[in-house]
Amino acid sequence: MWKEISGGVTAPKGFEAIGVAAGIKAGKKDMAMIYSAAPCQVAGTFTTNVVKAAPVKWDQSVVYGGGTVHAVVVNSGVANACTGAEGLGYCAETARQAAELFGIAPEQVLVASTGVIGRQIPIDKIKQGIALMKPMLAHTEAAGTLAAEAIMTTDTVKKEVAVELEIGGKLVTIGGMCKGSGMIHPNMCTMLSFVMTDAAISKELLQKAMSDSVRDTYNMVSVDGDTSTNDTALVLANGEAGNARIEEENADYYTFAKALNYVNTYLAKHMAADGEGATALFEVKVVGAKSKEDAVTLSKSIITSNLTKAAIFGHDANWGRILCAMGYSGVQFDPEQVDLYFESAAGRLKIIEDGVSTGYSEEEATKILSEKEVTAIADVKMGDASATAWGCDLTYDYVKINADYRS
Amino acid sequence: MWKEISGGVTAPKGFEAIGVAAGIKAGKKDMAMIYSAAPCQVAGTFTTNVVKAAPVKWDQSVVYGGGTVHAVVVNSGVANACTGAEGLGYCAETARQAAELFGIAPEQVLVASTGVIGRQIPIDKIKQGIALMKPMLAHTEAAGTLAAEAIMTTDTVKKEVAVELEIGGKLVTIGGMCKGSGMIHPNMCTMLSFVMTDAAISKELLQKAMSDSVRDTYNMVSVDGDTSTNDTALVLANGEAGNARIEEENADYYTFAKALNYVNTYLAKHMAADGEGATALFEVKVVGAKSKEDAVTLSKSIITSNLTKAAIFGHDANWGRILCAMGYSGVQFDPEQVDLYFESAAGRLKIIEDGVSTGYSEEEATKILSEKEVTAIADVKMGDASATAWGCDLTYDYVKINADYRS
Repeated sequence: MWKEISGGVTAPKGFEAIGVAAGIKAGKKDMAMIYSAAPCQVAGTFTTNVVKAAPVKWDQSVVYGGGTVHAVVVNSGVANACTGAEGLGYCAETARQAAELFGIAPEQVLVASTGVIGRQIPIDKIKQGIALMKPMLAHTEAAGTLAAEAIMTTDTVKKEVAVELEIGGKLVTIGGMCKGSGMIHPNMCTMLSFVMTDAAISKELLQKAMSDSVRDTYNMVSVDGDTSTNDTALVLANGEAGNARIEEENADYYTFAKALNYVNTYLAKHMAADGEGATALFEVKVVGAKSKEDAVTLSKSIITSNLTKAAIFGHDANWGRILCAMGYSGVQFDPEQVDLYFESAAGRLKIIEDGVSTGYSEEEATKILSEKEVTAIADVKMGDASATAWGCDLTYDYVKINADYRS
Repeated sequence: MWKEISGGVTAPKGFEAIGVAAGIKAGKKDMAMIYSAAPCQVAGTFTTNVVKAAPVKWDQSVVYGGGTVHAVVVNSGVANACTGAEGLGYCAETARQAAELFGIAPEQVLVASTGVIGRQIPIDKIKQGIALMKPMLAHTEAAGTLAAEAIMTTDTVKKEVAVELEIGGKLVTIGGMCKGSGMIHPNMCTMLSFVMTDAAISKELLQKAMSDSVRDTYNMVSVDGDTSTNDTALVLANGEAGNARIEEENADYYTFAKALNYVNTYLAKHMAADGEGATALFEVKVVGAKSKEDAVTLSKSIITSNLTKAAIFGHDANWGRILCAMGYSGVQFDPEQVDLYFESAAGRLKIIEDGVSTGYSEEEATKILSEKEVTAIADVKMGDASATAWGCDLTYDYVKINADYRS
């Protein structure tokens, strides 16, 4: 249905991007811009945290406003959260500066920030950064990668992906980038994710495809249980692919939605794998649940258990912690019916059957848990619903990174 | 109203105890026993985890059964959780063995276990341990301390406390011990807490005093957000103080209940301070909340935030993480009205006012946060309700302890 290709946000037709060092972070890239000369339909999902960063409020008004957009301006280093009216004013000023340069309306510019909460953004540097970036914008893979690098904070690797698909005989491309990697426990969406596509699609269906996908992708990721003030996932569609505009839930829509979901899944998994201090991606599948809601709650309870995460770091098949985390999740199930498996590139092992140990080999289990991607599968045998959640192990480095994040 | 005295479970009249090494853990004390020749009223609260350890099920049937009890048998090293019918059978066998030696009914013996989940307890060693302990039981402070030491797992210090008070001209004593220090996020009660008193009080009022107190003490502690399968808090009252039996909520009841609450508060705070790997007790007070429930939810959300806990470890006044944790708690409040203070033996500092930084001195804040007991006070200015929660910092040692707990 779709083919993964190299690249990220600049893979779709008509999207330019760039990333630069604007002096917000010492000696590191800290600003990115994405631009489409053709107007874009936009959809987005945002943090449910009561404490919403200023750029979240700005973007919500843009997305809910219903108009088209052309540009996204992102900075890392400072989150512009808990900054009051002054912080919101800086969002407007940022958008105004970009709008003037592009000859568009400020309401056609989205902004996003990530970094330390509680500090005002250095607006002069932001404005200089915009002026610096505008002439550097390029429709090249390298320019997209620079943007993906500029939005990193404690991320260790850039996260970008692109896919090609065909809709009504036309080649459609979707490309995205995102950043983690702490304060990741999205509730609506991930910290920052930007997906661009040249598909022609109505705003309503773009939002539906994105919202449906976010629920199964970014919202199933947890690095540390802390839902950020800045979570933002945006998708922009500029229609340059020339496909017949998708305006109803027909075959074209599902083709597009599935490819979009692949892009979001890729970004979500890579965000989990690059969780702060992580040495392993920890995937949890709950199957046989009574309802989807139960499966989601159970899998997320396991993925956020500090004790389980520390055991994964130690390659220790401490399955009691997994059963314990299921038990306090609030979901009703019979512990004495649960089967649990560990799986990785090194093999698959049944650890417990009907709630008690199978007498498995600890050596074998440790081998399986020593891989870079580890999956736990819990079958609660109560129905047909399932869910998959992604997290990572809890390591010394997580503590190190977060004990002195601001210094 | 009451006076703290030295000692623990053997401080009240008529209670004997002991702790020994029964060979469950290599070279360490691993079994404890408490005994009262006089029959005791008993009250208790237990884990709400769907996965309940066998001894929790046993004790629930004893406590809810309504009869009097004489003895408590505890082992550390193995939790007897996720052990099926076989595990429950071992509880009965443990109680039967103790009952025979004391000439009482098995239903008059409470049992408790703590340690690794999913292994069967070594019943032969448990039975040998009981036979070993019975003749060693003593009504001395030292014997109580041995018991408090024997129930430790990753705890670094024993936790015991005793108080004296007067009820109707009679000297009443309450003494307790508890253990942490991982998988601590009690929901009903702490991991294991045992409080003995010589007060004469009805079972109903003993349960009421305990339940009311547990809500504000053990249930407000979190080390790692993992609610154990074994949480048990028991209080035994043998009536040896000779006070007029407390049978209604009169002045005597409140005198007793307040002293009991002091004992539970002491044990809960010390459990938090001795959380796995902890270097500091982190106390969070939320004031000005609309309801008690809101205050509880807000304070527990802060206390369980990994990012906040790591910042406390780093002595970093990263207040944005605190506001963020309040924001995702589910409680509605106005972030732009919140005041936040840090307080410790080194001083008190207003960090944010109406949601934005006061421009406080980072140096001063770090000094305050470098103490062994640190308090954050958040005023949400919406009402009169307040709550206090206790936790600890997140450290390298927490990860170390839990990455290789079973090895």
